[in-house]
Amino acid sequence: RVRLRLPSNAHSFQFEELAKYIDSHEEEYVEILRDWVAVESVSTDVQKRPDVERMMEMTAEKLKNMQGKVELVDVGQQELPDGTTIPLPKVVTAQFGSDSSKRTVCIYGHVDVQPASKEDGWATEPYNLTDLNGNLYGRGASDNKAPVLAWIHTVEAYQKLGIELPVNVKFIIEGMEETGSDGLEAMVKVQKDSFFADVDYIVISDCGWLSRRPALTYGTRGNCYFHAAVEGPKEDLHSGVHGGTVIEPMTDLIGILNTMISPSGQILIPGICEAVSPMTEKERATYESIEFDMEDYRQNIGVERLMHSNKVELLAHRWRQPTVSIHGIEGAFSDPGSKTVIPARVIAKFSIRQVPDMDPKEVEKQVKEHLEAAFAKRGTPNKLKVTMVLGAKPWLADPQHLLYEAGKAAVKTVFNVEPDLVREGGTIPIARTFQEVVDKPIIMLPIGGFDDGLHSQNEKMSRYNYIEGTKLFAAYLHEVSQMKD
Amino acid sequence: RVRLRLPSNAHSFQFEELAKYIDSHEEEYVEILRDWVAVESVSTDVQKRPDVERMMEMTAEKLKNMQGKVELVDVGQQELPDGTTIPLPKVVTAQFGSDSSKRTVCIYGHVDVQPASKEDGWATEPYNLTDLNGNLYGRGASDNKAPVLAWIHTVEAYQKLGIELPVNVKFIIEGMEETGSDGLEAMVKVQKDSFFADVDYIVISDCGWLSRRPALTYGTRGNCYFHAAVEGPKEDLHSGVHGGTVIEPMTDLIGILNTMISPSGQILIPGICEAVSPMTEKERATYESIEFDMEDYRQNIGVERLMHSNKVELLAHRWRQPTVSIHGIEGAFSDPGSKTVIPARVIAKFSIRQVPDMDPKEVEKQVKEHLEAAFAKRGTPNKLKVTMVLGAKPWLADPQHLLYEAGKAAVKTVFNVEPDLVREGGTIPIARTFQEVVDKPIIMLPIGGFDDGLHSQNEKMSRYNYIEGTKLFAAYLHEVSQMKD
Repeated sequence: RVRLRLPSNAHSFQFEELAKYIDSHEEEYVEILRDWVAVESVSTDVQKRPDVERMMEMTAEKLKNMQGKVELVDVGQQELPDGTTIPLPKVVTAQFGSDSSKRTVCIYGHVDVQPASKEDGWATEPYNLTDLNGNLYGRGASDNKAPVLAWIHTVEAYQKLGIELPVNVKFIIEGMEETGSDGLEAMVKVQKDSFFADVDYIVISDCGWLSRRPALTYGTRGNCYFHAAVEGPKEDLHSGVHGGTVIEPMTDLIGILNTMISPSGQILIPGICEAVSPMTEKERATYESIEFDMEDYRQNIGVERLMHSNKVELLAHRWRQPTVSIHGIEGAFSDPGSKTVIPARVIAKFSIRQVPDMDPKEVEKQVKEHLEAAFAKRGTPNKLKVTMVLGAKPWLADPQHLLYEAGKAAVKTVFNVEPDLVREGGTIPIARTFQEVVDKPIIMLPIGGFDDGLHSQNEKMSRYNYIEGTKLFAAYLHEVSQMKD
Repeated sequence: RVRLRLPSNAHSFQFEELAKYIDSHEEEYVEILRDWVAVESVSTDVQKRPDVERMMEMTAEKLKNMQGKVELVDVGQQELPDGTTIPLPKVVTAQFGSDSSKRTVCIYGHVDVQPASKEDGWATEPYNLTDLNGNLYGRGASDNKAPVLAWIHTVEAYQKLGIELPVNVKFIIEGMEETGSDGLEAMVKVQKDSFFADVDYIVISDCGWLSRRPALTYGTRGNCYFHAAVEGPKEDLHSGVHGGTVIEPMTDLIGILNTMISPSGQILIPGICEAVSPMTEKERATYESIEFDMEDYRQNIGVERLMHSNKVELLAHRWRQPTVSIHGIEGAFSDPGSKTVIPARVIAKFSIRQVPDMDPKEVEKQVKEHLEAAFAKRGTPNKLKVTMVLGAKPWLADPQHLLYEAGKAAVKTVFNVEPDLVREGGTIPIARTFQEVVDKPIIMLPIGGFDDGLHSQNEKMSRYNYIEGTKLFAAYLHEVSQMKD
């Protein structure tokens, strides 16, 4: 499966040996991924906090067993909506090597996951890693447990073969990424001059390829996540007994949600689209050159028609345009079957992806003003409260940087192709923080497949991407050591 | 607590003895209600079907212990949305007395309940009957377990005191009322000339008073319950990775739901309001005479302002006007916290209360046409499917009938006041079936309080209504035997 070539600029680099080692440990890598997926480390659900804590401990344990210098860093408390606080999961840091003559690469990853349950429509048990036709199905398999393990296995492979690490490797692994990396930003600020003092580059592998071709990622969207609560009667009411006597909170909520997006998907909140930086001609040219099969994508997600009919527009709306998604409504009847209730308090959850030059603070103001005006216009006696629970900025890097050249070389070594240079529609909140606080170049080096189903039912990581991805990381460490800057 | 008077037209009626017996058995009545409430007989959730079955058996057992002629009637299968079938809960029938010189009264009730869980905001465990300040809190306490028990205890009190029942009493107790009385209509048709052959009158006690004054009910609204499903991608999508490339099903669903109701609560579906029979002057006069404190009602349900500011309009919209209530959305994210998902398939649940002269078949057509047109106008690639899962007609009786005179007399005996003559906004699907198939006069004789919280959090039955209600039923059986028709 692996195409063996000598890396472009290496003399003594023992890639073949590393690749063989990685291939021969595939089943061991799958088994540890199974152990990790089995932990329901859902960070958005405080009930699952003990699982997240356990996941952090397992991660630290693994790194300690490899003789890393490991710490479980206390990053403080999380404030819950009811005003109480609970401890945030600890952040795991680790260090392998401190040779000042070498560059130091810091690998970021996370081991918390999005919620999942069989009832959502999974074909398999989401926390029981299931191997089907070379795909490993399970919540968190691709986002982000296998990539974190691939990095760990990379260091382990060097160690086990007695090959000296070409760079110092640091890890920073968190357990709150899916809620917006609570506590991590403060921790990065605090450790700016300690843990991060000798870090030269930051590598993040928390995204996926665009197609079957490997990719390097130079931008992510941010995200502003809102809760809009409409409150009416003091308790739920029988819709027969009381229907017709009250303005129902659901009617109001649906009315104001409907003012945000046009039927064709345009954002109708004033100021949002105006803030987006225009596409340059150079950017358009880059987009045009990207390998992306619209029909393949359409079939993969299974819609009858995409929102945009040409590739550049579609990719632009995935990567460099904002979107509003309404995720659901809390407090109303959401089970199968029927219930004749007037819900008393309903909370819509929606989010707006952020791109340059949007500013979450501005977006918060725009959304609140827009929804409050729409609500006021209805003349309802109910009450509206809009809260922005997360405001993560977008991140954008320079794809001309040497880090990306190193990425291209590593991709060439392992896959013998040129990678796509892409952006990512999703949000990795900490990327922007690294950029602003640590102020060192960042690359996103994904190994996830384009069809991994992140945050969705039937999330998976293919054995191919997991194993070849580990080789890619092994090659990348070497390439970084060889950069001529 | 009980005001003792000799019933208006009785010579030998031993009401005082019955009332004393009932008072002295209050704690026993509360204990059996506790046992019944403990059974989670939720008929809308097929997972709870064994609990409903158990509830039917407990009901039959109780009636058998009183030497009733009891049957557990098989009423066939329920077809589930996935096409499979499960057995419907058996219907319990019972008979006490078959003296052809006496009238025969058939008591209808149900022992299934609406869903409930502590997380919905109950102050107490919903299936653990909790006694607070004379109120018995628990799911199904008022709807409809205590009223069913009150009728059973009425017969038992006559028996235990050795007082001859003044009428033959039949019971028909079902376990699917909350889903629309599946199977019961067919059963009533089948037993029209057997079980129902000697029935003279039907009494239903499945509603509540309008205020602290007892009420007799002469009408109920029907209900058409709809599921509107919008389907887009084949699975849920990550809203970052894919947001901006697809028209989201939630956006479409919210768009079409918003076309059904105006901000002030008017129904915008063509044909619905046009079908409503106009209010007569006589009707208006009746409404004006009803004791109903708007401010008390407003405070009780806890809204800042009611939908209508005068009593007649408000009562008319509760009882003789249709309403649309949107109950919730299945398939979207409905938990606390945040999830960044594009739900692939979302199903809105809403219902339209039915009044004369609406016809559920017509309403089904009107709703489908309206939503399909609104959906088509959006030009979305997603798919819409609207299903009417329940179509229950309204019921209206003649409040001048002797049954209501008997009711007034019984209320006078127990409470020494005139009852309100009211209609009910809720739906008792079987009332219309009894009217059409059995074709015998029906009365609704409620004992529930106006603030019992049916279908809501913190449902309760007060000890006062439970015990005085039992006395009311005891008096009513006598009054029916004395009717001069």
